[in-house]
Amino acid sequence: MTAPRTPLSDQVDRLDRARIARRLREPLRDERVTLSHGSGGKASHRLIDGMILPTLGTAGLTVEEDSAVLSVTGLATGRVAFTTDSYVVSPLFFPGGDIGSLAVHGTINDLATAGAQPLCLSLAFILEEGLEMSVLRSVVESIGSAATLAGVMIATGDTKVVPRGKADRLFINTSGIGLVAEGVSLSAANIRAGDRVLLSGCVGDHGIAVMLAREALEIEADIRSDSAPLHRMVAAILAAAPATRCFKDPTRGGVATSLNEMARQAGVGIAIDERLVPVHADVRAACEMLGLDPLHIANEGKLIAIVAPDEAARALDAMRSAPAGQDAAIIGEVLEGPEDMVLLKTEAGGSRVLDMLVGDPLPRIC
Amino acid sequence: MTAPRTPLSDQVDRLDRARIARRLREPLRDERVTLSHGSGGKASHRLIDGMILPTLGTAGLTVEEDSAVLSVTGLATGRVAFTTDSYVVSPLFFPGGDIGSLAVHGTINDLATAGAQPLCLSLAFILEEGLEMSVLRSVVESIGSAATLAGVMIATGDTKVVPRGKADRLFINTSGIGLVAEGVSLSAANIRAGDRVLLSGCVGDHGIAVMLAREALEIEADIRSDSAPLHRMVAAILAAAPATRCFKDPTRGGVATSLNEMARQAGVGIAIDERLVPVHADVRAACEMLGLDPLHIANEGKLIAIVAPDEAARALDAMRSAPAGQDAAIIGEVLEGPEDMVLLKTEAGGSRVLDMLVGDPLPRIC
Repeated sequence: MTAPRTPLSDQVDRLDRARIARRLREPLRDERVTLSHGSGGKASHRLIDGMILPTLGTAGLTVEEDSAVLSVTGLATGRVAFTTDSYVVSPLFFPGGDIGSLAVHGTINDLATAGAQPLCLSLAFILEEGLEMSVLRSVVESIGSAATLAGVMIATGDTKVVPRGKADRLFINTSGIGLVAEGVSLSAANIRAGDRVLLSGCVGDHGIAVMLAREALEIEADIRSDSAPLHRMVAAILAAAPATRCFKDPTRGGVATSLNEMARQAGVGIAIDERLVPVHADVRAACEMLGLDPLHIANEGKLIAIVAPDEAARALDAMRSAPAGQDAAIIGEVLEGPEDMVLLKTEAGGSRVLDMLVGDPLPRIC
Repeated sequence: MTAPRTPLSDQVDRLDRARIARRLREPLRDERVTLSHGSGGKASHRLIDGMILPTLGTAGLTVEEDSAVLSVTGLATGRVAFTTDSYVVSPLFFPGGDIGSLAVHGTINDLATAGAQPLCLSLAFILEEGLEMSVLRSVVESIGSAATLAGVMIATGDTKVVPRGKADRLFINTSGIGLVAEGVSLSAANIRAGDRVLLSGCVGDHGIAVMLAREALEIEADIRSDSAPLHRMVAAILAAAPATRCFKDPTRGGVATSLNEMARQAGVGIAIDERLVPVHADVRAACEMLGLDPLHIANEGKLIAIVAPDEAARALDAMRSAPAGQDAAIIGEVLEGPEDMVLLKTEAGGSRVLDMLVGDPLPRIC
């Protein structure tokens, strides 16, 4: 006697119920992460079913341990965006966020800047033996709440444990997939002379917030990471300015590096005006004290948009209407040349080449 | 004057040419990994464009640094498989493979066991400052060649560097997406009493090979990891035995853990016969010396298939015809009960409960 095959959703439902039952059977009592939690055996199951899945909450309801099969509508266009990022930020918690929310926002933003509606994320931990379980729990809570707020599911996951001294507490990888809607075609190759350069807000907040949290510097400043998801802002801009050329989120290397990448990919010049770049006063002061350029500092919730000149005003309005976009500004424009270069009109009225970040003044910023 | 928009493929082509030009401009000369290689700035570009992309070869031709947009056919069914795994194996190189080939095969296999045709992988490195560039290059070469042989593209990537002492040389995360064909519906929930349990070959090779390489034990043995991609074997089995219930690749925790997971997910009992489980003589001897059960040892190129009784012979033939499937065997069957348990008929003729792996006798095996 063979029961008829059930549709996929029913099967998932059935597996979830079985998993919930197991969770109730085997609660997690360990106070620290041990090598056994990465073995794939009983302790791994207790960690995943007894803590990670219940703590992720609704964002993780459909997590499959090996591979998730997603039944999604809207795939008819056949365009899927795919991205990956590892997060090694130190410290794990900082004003405005933590490694968990960062891992959700950062990967969402890589999908968003490709013009994709984020669909789901994977979540992979590398844990150091001895990590306090309460720390891991806080990070998982933060992941669950960031994903829920962004409307993105955690679909699949992995947990590895390495011996004490072989990692630094915890690292996260999130990969993501998203759907690119019909008609959306973003690429640096679309950039043309005359296009406008838009920036969604103040630069440098994330990098400086993490550095101050890490170094315990004697700088009195109220600086919080700008870590935030950008997919809704991107959707608003694309609705208002459908000829938008491309987006970039200026993370590691900052706005300067992102603009250089775009100039090289498109074979154009980009000129920006330093006076038009919004910077919080505290960030500016910290950068001056530390000899850093805010344009080289990482952001985790800022968007650069290159838009057609006749759509620039509408795109700016859309940016400013989005959460965290109220300081958005048009900071420059695209030139025929010099090719592959970014020019900065300085506050003093002069002009200089703005290079990519060289070296790494702020390691482990994300 | 605005040039007409080109189709996506042309844009990718144009970006690739730009990237190749940059590669030629900025060769990588560093002999060791530095923090700058993870900064997102100039050194990161030199590492990615000057070494990683050219070394990946054809498998990496379309790598996008932030997010890849894939134009794929066959998405009309709307079912995408998505998986992630981090790899922290120690040592990095072992008989039969290395962390790079393992990261390709392991993630392909998680897609394959979901019944998906692997489409592409992401590739994320966490590197320890000071890692020899020659080691990284060997690993990237291995990734490129494993992906090319498997017919899978590397679509997107990320590189982070942490200070010396904060990681162990190098960790990899690969995530993967694949397409599930119309009519394929695999799930432990499909398992029924009477189903047969098939295993594609000898167990324990990977775990013992890695352990011998790591510990430099005085055991004379010619044991190589079985690391291999399983998607072609899966496709052959599905063609021969379309009612196949589900697959699993018995990695961490071994065959015993995988069977226990399936028994619990399906709410059935599974009985296997120890005498029918193929084990290489050298692996058996090493396990006896070390007090380990080969059924708890990790494999990286083995497949468990649960198949309908009337299709078992055809499925076994398909397994045996696939590369690395010549030792395949039917090792047991599914029972109504005892629910959630695996029973082992021992070589001595008795019967005992075969539990999941408890503890972790072989940490960092993948």
